[in-house]
Amino acid sequence: VLVNGAPGAAVSALDRGLQFGDGLFETMRCEQGAIRWFGRHLARLRAGCERLGLPAPDGTLLRAEAESLLAGRLRAIAKIIVTRGVATARGYAPAGDEISTRVVIVQAWPGAMAAEFRVGLSPVPLGCNPQLAGIKHLNRLEQVLAQQAAVRAGWHEALMCSGAGDVVCGSMSNLFVLQGTQLRTPALTQCGVAGVMRSLVLEIAPRLGFAVEVAPVSIQWLSEAAAMFVTNVRLGVQAVHWYQGRRLEPDPRCAQLQELIDGTLA
Amino acid sequence: VLVNGAPGAAVSALDRGLQFGDGLFETMRCEQGAIRWFGRHLARLRAGCERLGLPAPDGTLLRAEAESLLAGRLRAIAKIIVTRGVATARGYAPAGDEISTRVVIVQAWPGAMAAEFRVGLSPVPLGCNPQLAGIKHLNRLEQVLAQQAAVRAGWHEALMCSGAGDVVCGSMSNLFVLQGTQLRTPALTQCGVAGVMRSLVLEIAPRLGFAVEVAPVSIQWLSEAAAMFVTNVRLGVQAVHWYQGRRLEPDPRCAQLQELIDGTLA
Repeated sequence: VLVNGAPGAAVSALDRGLQFGDGLFETMRCEQGAIRWFGRHLARLRAGCERLGLPAPDGTLLRAEAESLLAGRLRAIAKIIVTRGVATARGYAPAGDEISTRVVIVQAWPGAMAAEFRVGLSPVPLGCNPQLAGIKHLNRLEQVLAQQAAVRAGWHEALMCSGAGDVVCGSMSNLFVLQGTQLRTPALTQCGVAGVMRSLVLEIAPRLGFAVEVAPVSIQWLSEAAAMFVTNVRLGVQAVHWYQGRRLEPDPRCAQLQELIDGTLA
Repeated sequence: VLVNGAPGAAVSALDRGLQFGDGLFETMRCEQGAIRWFGRHLARLRAGCERLGLPAPDGTLLRAEAESLLAGRLRAIAKIIVTRGVATARGYAPAGDEISTRVVIVQAWPGAMAAEFRVGLSPVPLGCNPQLAGIKHLNRLEQVLAQQAAVRAGWHEALMCSGAGDVVCGSMSNLFVLQGTQLRTPALTQCGVAGVMRSLVLEIAPRLGFAVEVAPVSIQWLSEAAAMFVTNVRLGVQAVHWYQGRRLEPDPRCAQLQELIDGTLA
C-alpha cells in the first residue's frame, strides 16, 4: 500500500474519505506488470473529481505508483482511492484548502469464479441521485448491504433496482441482456456506476453484429430474457447461468466478445 | 483523537469505513466535561449497527473515551465513528471476521451562528433507500455536495428534497414547520437522518401546547409557511430568519422550546 506515495497503510482518521466517503476509487485489472485500460479508469476518475469539486488527479503519478507495486505479478488487482483529504474544518462543507489524499493498493488476483454464475434480484434498492450517478465514489453502503444479502442467498452477484423499479446494474457489475442480435444495458443517469468493462462492451459489441441499446430493463422483461451477462474488469464478460433460480443458456457470443475486448489495448 | 482507545489519528487505508463508508457516526454536544443526551446517541448508533450488521458498540467504553478527551472544556463537540473495521477480504461483501474500528474525536465548540439564519432549497436531492434512512451512516456525499452549494449561495443551511419532491430535512439538521399550534416535521422512512435534537423536540413540544405531526412537507406548502426552525445538537432549536430570500418572523416559542430541551437530561 502507498499513501501519498509513501509505503504504509496509515490514513488520518480526520480524512474526509473516512468521515463522509468524500472521494472516489478505481479498481483495475493488472496484467504482466501493467494496468489494463488505464486511460478509461483515469477518465472516469477525472469525471468523478469534477463532479465532487476535487482537483484533477495526476494520472502519470497514479499509474507509476500502482505499477511500482506490481513487482512482476502476472495478474493482480490495483485499487486507487482519491479523497478530498484531511478535514481542515468541522462539518460537511469542504473548506477548500484540503490536500487530496491518494491511496494505491495492489491485491492478489482473486481465484476463479464458480463454473455456474448465479445471480438474483436484490432486496436492496439503489437511491437515485443524478449528481452521484455513474461515478465511482466512496459511498458504497448500498452495495455492501446488497452483497451481504447475496452471500446469504448463495448468489455470485445481486442485481439492483432503482426506486422507480427498473433493474439498473449489479452490486459490482453492469448488466447486459441479449435478445437475438439486440444487446440492452440500462442507462446510469439516476444511479449505478458506469463501468470500464461496460464502456468496452458498448464500443466493441457492434463489431459482432449486435445492435446495442441503452434502455430501461424492467423486472418483468428480465424475468423472460433468454440470455444475460454482467461485466466488470475482474469478471470480464461473465455469462449468467442462473437468474432467480431459472437456468439460462450462456450465449457463445459472450466468449467472442470477451476475446475481442481482451485484445483491446486502450 | 483516540483510535481503538489509543491516542493517535491513524486508521488503516484498508478500513472499510474509508473503502466503502461502511460504518456510522455520532456528533455530540459536550458541556462541562459530559456528553449531553448520550443515551439517545447510543440508541441511534445501536440501531445503525443493527441495520448494517455490525456488532453492538460498548456504550460505556465509548462514553468514557470521549469524556476522557474533554479535559474540563466548558463546551465541545465529540464525534464517534464506528466502522466495520479493516477489510479481511476484497470486495463489498464483509467477510464476517472484521474487527470493528472506533474513532473518538473531540473538537472545539464552533463559534456562534450569525444573528440571521439563512436557509434555501438545495439543488442536491436525497436518494431514497429505506434500509439506510434514519441512521447516521458514513455515506454523506449528498450532504457534502449540498453544503458546497449552500456556501456558494450564502446560506447557513440547505433543505433537501427526496426524489419524490417533498422537503425532508436539512443537510445537517432536521426541519420543523410551525403553523399556529401545529408543528410538522417530515417522516424519515425513505431518506434523512433522525436527529437526537429532533427526538427531543418531538417529545417536549407537546408540553408547550403544540400538536406535533410527522407528515410530508411539500415545497409549495413550505414556501407559504409562517415560521420554521431546524434542529441538531449543535444549533439546538434554530429559528429560520430567511427562507429562499423570504423573511420569516422567528416564533418566540422556539426559545421556550430550547429552554425546556436544555433542561432535559436524558
